[in-house]
Amino acid sequence: MKIVLIGGHGTIGKTVAAALSSRHEVIIAGRNSGDIQVDITSETSIEDMFKALKSVDACICTAGTGYYGDFGTMRGQHMTAGIQGKLMGQVNLVLIGKDYLTEGGSFTLTSGVAAEQPAKNGTCVAMINGAVNSFVLGASQELKRDQRINAVSPGLVEDSGVRYGALFPGYNLVPMHKVANAYLLSVEGAVNGRIIKVYE
Amino acid sequence: MKIVLIGGHGTIGKTVAAALSSRHEVIIAGRNSGDIQVDITSETSIEDMFKALKSVDACICTAGTGYYGDFGTMRGQHMTAGIQGKLMGQVNLVLIGKDYLTEGGSFTLTSGVAAEQPAKNGTCVAMINGAVNSFVLGASQELKRDQRINAVSPGLVEDSGVRYGALFPGYNLVPMHKVANAYLLSVEGAVNGRIIKVYE
Repeated sequence: MKIVLIGGHGTIGKTVAAALSSRHEVIIAGRNSGDIQVDITSETSIEDMFKALKSVDACICTAGTGYYGDFGTMRGQHMTAGIQGKLMGQVNLVLIGKDYLTEGGSFTLTSGVAAEQPAKNGTCVAMINGAVNSFVLGASQELKRDQRINAVSPGLVEDSGVRYGALFPGYNLVPMHKVANAYLLSVEGAVNGRIIKVYE
Repeated sequence: MKIVLIGGHGTIGKTVAAALSSRHEVIIAGRNSGDIQVDITSETSIEDMFKALKSVDACICTAGTGYYGDFGTMRGQHMTAGIQGKLMGQVNLVLIGKDYLTEGGSFTLTSGVAAEQPAKNGTCVAMINGAVNSFVLGASQELKRDQRINAVSPGLVEDSGVRYGALFPGYNLVPMHKVANAYLLSVEGAVNGRIIKVYE
């Protein structure tokens, strides 16, 4: 398969790339690095990427974050980057990319455990992940030409434990091979409209 | 209780107002009608409303919609109004309003069945409802002074059957008294962080 992986240099992205690259052509897309550049907050940039790729069999997105911070002082403006990036960036990859995706191709988006189990200070991220999950449920009914779409919803992944563990007290670390497997299930399997939860 | 009900002239809002007004002071807030005006897409307008109300014991929002339309031609721009209104409008009611809500006061937001069971053409609404639900889960952990927050997630309500039934083939109509009860459970009960599902 020809697979485009947006965010392939991130913690999860690197693991997914490693798990897929022996059997597939994996094209890493990043804002400033990778094989091809894309800014997922720009519909034009997304369209340009897909035009350059011509067609892909699978589109995976592991890019995008959201605001963590004190709820007492949180304001709408703190949520803008997450809405434009992790939410609408992923949504636009699908809305635009479906015309470039081959028959039987798949989208795999990334949400996260916060949708169901928000951490303290993580209400913005929770909101964005919940939106991604429900978008996938809707889109999975609508895609044509046997295309599929799933979301991988990871917990706190092992390789982020040192950097982000303090933000997630009481969350079990998710082994990286389990995270990789979730993406493999979506890309190489037959599932559609699934929120693939990898919480521990 | 002193209750502000945003969207109190809508289909659900009218029912909720009727169910609460015999026992409480219900102030209807609407964009152009009602006892007080508010445009929930404007943080300034929300702040002005709460300043004018001084304090409230319960804030209910039944306002806000989202785009319904063909997925094949759906674009990010179709989602903007729903994000600014039903999503961020409700989010901002909480982020701003919590400082005006009394100790032990409650927020009751409105999401909808689409978060879990999107109708055809309803992927935008699904996304927004999923976001509202997960926001409520996060916010319920964070509110101080014994404040509570819940979301009512209604299905297709009976009074909308004639107008919107064709958009929701196979959805059972929800009796209005059940919808009203969901809001009563949130406002007069003790629940917190609940997605109160009223699907049939």
